[in-house]
Amino acid sequence: MASYRAPLDDIRFVVNDMLNFTDHYATLKEVEQVDRETFDLLLEQGGKFCEEVLHPLYRSGDEAGCEFDGGEVRLPAGYREARARFVEAGWPALTARKKWGGQHLPRSLAIAINEMMCATNPPWVMLTGLPNGVMMAMEAGGKASGDDALEHRYFPGFVDGRFSATMCLTEPHCGTDLGLLRTRAEPQEDGSYRLSGTKIFISYGEHDCAENIIHLVLARLPGAPSGTSGISMFVVPKFLVDEEGRGGARNAVSCGAIEHKMGYAASPTCVMNFEGAVGHIVGRPNEGLRYMFVMMNDARIGSGMAGLGLANASFQGALAYAKERLQSRALSGAQNPDGPADPILVHPGVRQLLLTQKALTEGCRALVLDTARWCDVADYGATQEARAFAQQRLGLLTPIVKGFVTEVSNEVVSHGVQVLGGHGYIRESGMEQLMRDCRVTTIYEGTTQVQAMDLIGRKVMLDKGAALTSLVADILAFCDAHVAHPRVGAHAASLRNKAQEWHQLAAETGVAALNAPDEAGAASVDFLMYSGYVVVGFYWLKLMLAAEEKLAAGGDPGFCHGKFKAADFYFRRLLPRTLSLAVTLRAGAGSLMEMNEEEF
Amino acid sequence: MASYRAPLDDIRFVVNDMLNFTDHYATLKEVEQVDRETFDLLLEQGGKFCEEVLHPLYRSGDEAGCEFDGGEVRLPAGYREARARFVEAGWPALTARKKWGGQHLPRSLAIAINEMMCATNPPWVMLTGLPNGVMMAMEAGGKASGDDALEHRYFPGFVDGRFSATMCLTEPHCGTDLGLLRTRAEPQEDGSYRLSGTKIFISYGEHDCAENIIHLVLARLPGAPSGTSGISMFVVPKFLVDEEGRGGARNAVSCGAIEHKMGYAASPTCVMNFEGAVGHIVGRPNEGLRYMFVMMNDARIGSGMAGLGLANASFQGALAYAKERLQSRALSGAQNPDGPADPILVHPGVRQLLLTQKALTEGCRALVLDTARWCDVADYGATQEARAFAQQRLGLLTPIVKGFVTEVSNEVVSHGVQVLGGHGYIRESGMEQLMRDCRVTTIYEGTTQVQAMDLIGRKVMLDKGAALTSLVADILAFCDAHVAHPRVGAHAASLRNKAQEWHQLAAETGVAALNAPDEAGAASVDFLMYSGYVVVGFYWLKLMLAAEEKLAAGGDPGFCHGKFKAADFYFRRLLPRTLSLAVTLRAGAGSLMEMNEEEF
Repeated sequence: MASYRAPLDDIRFVVNDMLNFTDHYATLKEVEQVDRETFDLLLEQGGKFCEEVLHPLYRSGDEAGCEFDGGEVRLPAGYREARARFVEAGWPALTARKKWGGQHLPRSLAIAINEMMCATNPPWVMLTGLPNGVMMAMEAGGKASGDDALEHRYFPGFVDGRFSATMCLTEPHCGTDLGLLRTRAEPQEDGSYRLSGTKIFISYGEHDCAENIIHLVLARLPGAPSGTSGISMFVVPKFLVDEEGRGGARNAVSCGAIEHKMGYAASPTCVMNFEGAVGHIVGRPNEGLRYMFVMMNDARIGSGMAGLGLANASFQGALAYAKERLQSRALSGAQNPDGPADPILVHPGVRQLLLTQKALTEGCRALVLDTARWCDVADYGATQEARAFAQQRLGLLTPIVKGFVTEVSNEVVSHGVQVLGGHGYIRESGMEQLMRDCRVTTIYEGTTQVQAMDLIGRKVMLDKGAALTSLVADILAFCDAHVAHPRVGAHAASLRNKAQEWHQLAAETGVAALNAPDEAGAASVDFLMYSGYVVVGFYWLKLMLAAEEKLAAGGDPGFCHGKFKAADFYFRRLLPRTLSLAVTLRAGAGSLMEMNEEEF
Repeated sequence: MASYRAPLDDIRFVVNDMLNFTDHYATLKEVEQVDRETFDLLLEQGGKFCEEVLHPLYRSGDEAGCEFDGGEVRLPAGYREARARFVEAGWPALTARKKWGGQHLPRSLAIAINEMMCATNPPWVMLTGLPNGVMMAMEAGGKASGDDALEHRYFPGFVDGRFSATMCLTEPHCGTDLGLLRTRAEPQEDGSYRLSGTKIFISYGEHDCAENIIHLVLARLPGAPSGTSGISMFVVPKFLVDEEGRGGARNAVSCGAIEHKMGYAASPTCVMNFEGAVGHIVGRPNEGLRYMFVMMNDARIGSGMAGLGLANASFQGALAYAKERLQSRALSGAQNPDGPADPILVHPGVRQLLLTQKALTEGCRALVLDTARWCDVADYGATQEARAFAQQRLGLLTPIVKGFVTEVSNEVVSHGVQVLGGHGYIRESGMEQLMRDCRVTTIYEGTTQVQAMDLIGRKVMLDKGAALTSLVADILAFCDAHVAHPRVGAHAASLRNKAQEWHQLAAETGVAALNAPDEAGAASVDFLMYSGYVVVGFYWLKLMLAAEEKLAAGGDPGFCHGKFKAADFYFRRLLPRTLSLAVTLRAGAGSLMEMNEEEF
């Protein structure tokens, strides 16, 4: 299995040198302050946990998979103990409010640590990550109904680790189109509900690692409107929980089967049968989808991080191999004359793969961590205006983080296999597992195609371009300010053009879609990818400037020059992908819609 | 598991309407003639065998994998029987010479049928495909030494199915760089050799489905020059074979272990230990690599076909799902108003995936089948000039077939998973297996990076651009002839520009590499991909014209218009990828070579 070293220096470089998290944290209200030492300490502890506890279980968990036995699910050996250690160390309490026993630290801290967890054991991360999202959705519901009784009942159990959680959305006939869902909730005289229906693809719907499993379920009330406006949210525990949070009888919810998947073998993907299971409504009737989207948006950032973590793990594995594996001589003459051959790192084709890995991974890390910063501001910004602005920016960045980062992460992990050649195709190397696990990231929590429509349709067109225009203005101002800069200037000039074209492409698509809605769909995926390359280019400029400051302040020259050269590679070899995207995006809906079913 | 229908109409369309194989076969000498009825009959029988025998074993073989037990290897249930049926039907004899019991039909016929075998069970195909390549390499060796005794001894067993075969090249420390290989061959007094060494990644090195396994092994004679000029080829049987081909004692070659891989689980990938195993030299000393490359070049076309077959299987599975799965309404209004939702085929994002699959798969099929035609001419062309020209063209096309077709096939099979969403990630759908199996096609028989260097270095630069110039001239002439054509003209004009730029890019790279060899390597992968898009564009023009003729002659309008629209999609949505490739190709070696090891 490829070794993994927590990329503490790289994460610190982004949060300290590029984003200045210390100053950022000082602006937040209603949340615990985080100073640099605390951040560093938690990051280090998190990295240590990932290296020592999660990483060693990664391959064995994949080999063993989960066992289903008469409704019970057993996770691979070591997963239970790893969760116990996670709980013992207090990690589930990180961002939860103090009144539930939490530490109430900003989300960005958890997101930064999450990269390393995703890099070392993404299927395990689902187990421990879901309660945070479920708490966010339940809080949104509680706020809407003005009632936090369910929070009282359940949150302490999430925070002290007794409870795990799931999100139950998908049904056999409905995935993306939740409007089709059929699970019913019948009101009872005591104010509770009885839920009936079948949910599929429920991660950790059943397992043996927590005292109780709390399901957040989308279902319909009797007489609810059809479609998405008739969906309500319910909390349905595996074991009934009284108002004080104490466990009781088994509820009528059970796991009927688990799926066998391409990857994520250690994460049980369950068919869940609700057979008159007792539940309570969260928030107000027919508003369930709105609360679920609070969780979903968080999960989408988590998906981007999962892709990124796997991408970084793949880069680390490929780089280590490329430095060691001796094969053929450099075209320009032997580089390792005393050895039988040169390390494959000397070959341009191998370097192209590795540099693509490095430039995409590090650029995307800056994007995701800045998005994490916007999460903090949206939650805890100093003013309502600041929070609203952050929410808008976050809305724009979220589909890019989910859609673009996962797509390029899939490219990165495939390159990791390629660098090792036949050895990468062998399970033992661990490289192919990264690829299998990464493949789901462009699917779950809304496919790339769904993200693309969210971006162009909701976040650009419905918003009348406001969020986009604001981000483009930021990029243009940044480019203008640095266009004469000796190291960055040429890249700033080229990014300036791309940012303007990005804005233009959005406008053209918007106009075309006025009369022909398919034009938005036809442009959407290329627009998403174009957006990602521009935005990551913006972060690479920022990373270059941060590296320059660091170098001037006596930072490690290898580290800083590595950033300069990776940025150069990005601008010379990756940003030009936008050339093709602009053309194919403009090809219009005709190129996609003209073919009849029988002509396919 | 996704259903599979042998794409007989599509293959027939290429070989009859576009390539006119009947006329082509009439030009060949020293080989059996194939008329249209014979071709059709064999194609149909092959398709039936694939649908009925190979396809049903595909998923079960993946689930079961191979078992290793004390040196013995058991293939999954049904594989032995499938091979027995294959042998019984006479398939191993298809292209072998009559004197060995073969039917001596042209290779193109076998390649066309091979697509369907690769689409339905690529790991099984390795078992039955290897003897053909081994016979080609041994024939090349026999011709060089003027001695066909080994052919007498072994070929009848290959042709009647008693023997299977392997190619033993890779060693633990040497894959791409065969110059490093260490396996030794000690000459014996009786003219035989004793081979000692360890080979890895040997497909079907051991199994229970044939009477004998014949290994073709690269090794060094005592005192042989170091590097690739000191490699000889040996034939080493599992059971000794006398001069009449009769089996004898167990030889000192054994399987030490099998690998666990991402895919191709039904194909045992063996560690083979040679411990003084008896072998015979093939051809002349120190020329082994040259003979092996005869086999390797054939295997590279086979790899392209493996990618293509899997790509087509994925397209079929995704298309069937997209027609059935109801989810959300079309952006332009309900298309299936009586149903709960529209089939996902109406959504532009899904169509983009499917059309990419269709346009790449069908364009690549035309490329590979035309390459197969060139194989025939190289083997059996009417004149020496025709054979030499075909050999040159084949040399240029082979790395494109191996490198480009497998790369885009990997894109296609990933799209197939994406169309099914979560259901594609589940093993049951069969879509993810296609992706796992396809992943090896860019690795084995020389990685994409190796193909890219072969193309720019050997096939373009060493050749002083002759083969490239000739192909570019063909493309330009074709474009000029059709530039005023109402349906094809605009595409011909744009392809004309691309073909000229392709030539120009080759020239620029060649000049740059004169002083700095890394420039060739730095441009190579983008050049390979650029080449592929231009060449496949050429075939799409030809396919359009063939469809037009077919339509005029009363062909199925749905079929023909499907070709026109897929071609339109190719020129509007896929060929523009060359825009980015031209820029990144020209970025030069600096963007790859400047980063020091510690800066990575």
